[in-house]
Amino acid sequence: MLNFSFVNPTHIHFGEQQISTLAVNIPLDAKVLVVYGGGSIKSNGIYEQVASALEKHVWGEFAGVEPNPSYQTCMKAVELVKAHNYDFILAVGGGSVIDGCKFIAAAACFEGEPWEILSKGAPVESALPIGVVLTLPATGSESNSFSVVSNLQSNDKLPFATPLVQPKFAILDPNVMTTLPTRQLANGVVDAFVHTMEQYLTYPVDAKVQDRFAEGLLMTLMEEGPKVFAKDAPYAVKANIMWSATMALNGLIGAGVPQDWSTHMIGHELTAVYGLDHAQTLAIVLPRMMMEQKEAKREKLLQYAQRVLNLDMSDEDAAIKQAIEKTEAFFHSVQMPTRLRDYGLGEEVADKIVAQLERHGMVALGEHQAVTLEKSRSILLQCV
Amino acid sequence: MLNFSFVNPTHIHFGEQQISTLAVNIPLDAKVLVVYGGGSIKSNGIYEQVASALEKHVWGEFAGVEPNPSYQTCMKAVELVKAHNYDFILAVGGGSVIDGCKFIAAAACFEGEPWEILSKGAPVESALPIGVVLTLPATGSESNSFSVVSNLQSNDKLPFATPLVQPKFAILDPNVMTTLPTRQLANGVVDAFVHTMEQYLTYPVDAKVQDRFAEGLLMTLMEEGPKVFAKDAPYAVKANIMWSATMALNGLIGAGVPQDWSTHMIGHELTAVYGLDHAQTLAIVLPRMMMEQKEAKREKLLQYAQRVLNLDMSDEDAAIKQAIEKTEAFFHSVQMPTRLRDYGLGEEVADKIVAQLERHGMVALGEHQAVTLEKSRSILLQCV
Repeated sequence: MLNFSFVNPTHIHFGEQQISTLAVNIPLDAKVLVVYGGGSIKSNGIYEQVASALEKHVWGEFAGVEPNPSYQTCMKAVELVKAHNYDFILAVGGGSVIDGCKFIAAAACFEGEPWEILSKGAPVESALPIGVVLTLPATGSESNSFSVVSNLQSNDKLPFATPLVQPKFAILDPNVMTTLPTRQLANGVVDAFVHTMEQYLTYPVDAKVQDRFAEGLLMTLMEEGPKVFAKDAPYAVKANIMWSATMALNGLIGAGVPQDWSTHMIGHELTAVYGLDHAQTLAIVLPRMMMEQKEAKREKLLQYAQRVLNLDMSDEDAAIKQAIEKTEAFFHSVQMPTRLRDYGLGEEVADKIVAQLERHGMVALGEHQAVTLEKSRSILLQCV
Repeated sequence: MLNFSFVNPTHIHFGEQQISTLAVNIPLDAKVLVVYGGGSIKSNGIYEQVASALEKHVWGEFAGVEPNPSYQTCMKAVELVKAHNYDFILAVGGGSVIDGCKFIAAAACFEGEPWEILSKGAPVESALPIGVVLTLPATGSESNSFSVVSNLQSNDKLPFATPLVQPKFAILDPNVMTTLPTRQLANGVVDAFVHTMEQYLTYPVDAKVQDRFAEGLLMTLMEEGPKVFAKDAPYAVKANIMWSATMALNGLIGAGVPQDWSTHMIGHELTAVYGLDHAQTLAIVLPRMMMEQKEAKREKLLQYAQRVLNLDMSDEDAAIKQAIEKTEAFFHSVQMPTRLRDYGLGEEVADKIVAQLERHGMVALGEHQAVTLEKSRSILLQCV
């Protein structure tokens, strides 16, 4: 096991009717900006629950944070915060809204040009407190300190992270998933699955707890994922997916183990250039990354094949091949395409994305920095 | 899955050489009381590492917190805190020292008779901040808000809990286990195992993540526990046990699931009356509790038999019987006796302990409150 430091200070309130606890989870003297996305919360009842819980608070709202939140949109919210002296940000949404709120919270307190937080890693020294009402389980952003924001003008999709923007609390009511469209449910399941894989499928460091926890999340997502699309999907299915998605990226399973993230880095570029959903890119890249890295990841691939997929291990090479196929089949089982051609894209993607990776310094990805630009190109060509 | 709220704000610093981070983990302007137990830290090098890390701090020390920390000893430390205005408590020890420090931290700020925190549940409104250098993985006390303190005069062993006494940080260096005696290592493994079981072996509520995490801890402890006694036990074995013990009682695996704790309640009384180590009592009671409750716990016993122990499930009753036998055999494999007679005790124990349970209001224990005093008596008689 590698040395690590770990803490997760986000207070999780999980279950039915938990949105009402906003009334006590946000200080009564706070001036709250409620930030959300395209407005689905107005038709599915979540907006009303939030408004009802905040009836004793002073609050305003900012709508329109888009999937892959843009710097441009976030800066409009920052203007609003400054104009009205909001001092608490309540994100009501999925990962995009939450990531946007993290940037808004930091940018509102930043002296200088906030774009430099993303472009130059300018240090964040303070941020407004953030709370979350999660409407889409997927990214884990509700209880971590990471954010990814896109610049619409420059086609950049860039991350920043600081404990200052980690949400104070996150409310997770699985019932919010009831009205989610198939595409968003699929995105959530796949995103959580690949987050787990990027922290699990590297090389063994004798970290038995972390491995077993990651395997538990993978098994849960594989068991429950395909069931969540039914109109009458049980509460337990939604609850298990929602809790898995949070646990997949709250720092715990990645503490003390090597991490990969090469699939994410390539995926981010695909989203920035072609506008694919984040999880759509992951489902395309991961199976090819597994195949390309199958020798470097051999031991963990075998462990995955045996413990998670319960495969026949008598022929190890066959088991690895089957494990990769079953991973791709799992993505299909949750209604997720896994090829560039499913989005009308072809071999032209490879050069374009490799150029992006190069521009962003992503010249050697993965736990061994073994995914060179040439390997990324090869992976992308296999993704067609 | 049941509704839950969960947060764990203790910052974990895990790994080799982490004790040196005390230098930055405790504010430089704090006046630190270092609290420890019988003095083994002076012979195994931990005291020196702590002193070296604190060389720029103002600090004093209090030695002699005993296993099952006593109210009487803790109150001596409280006097010292008050006399010298210490404002930070550093626990250097295992669960007993940490539990003692939690009481010291609360009692030092308590107006009135601190015994009432334990005896009457008097509310704790403030406490001194606590840090931990863990020297014995076992209780999980390093990152939770629970404490159990004994009154030597009245044979009471009573719990209290408040987020105010949850450690700010905990330093977990697996190398501290190198010089631990067999008895303490065995205690630690068994304690962590039974903590996990008390949150796992109840009835199913479709909480797949929690179940898989608990199973991961049980498997890790069963795999690594027997290996830890060798003089040259690998670092990874110690690390896996240490991290398992922390995760076993930091609130995570118990969030959203029913909990039992009946084995602990009976065990506490055995310790209070006969002075057995905490884990010794758990290893005696748990197998008999599993047998007594085998119908109420049937579904989870089968899940345990299948997933954790990988037993042949063709005959369910046989699998349950074997699962209980294998649990007891695991205790033996980590050098832990499992019978009252191993400590020179016999049937006389039953009446005495039942009287204690009755006196403390423990008349209906377990997830279904089904363990009546009569059942506790029956369990105790089977423990002989």
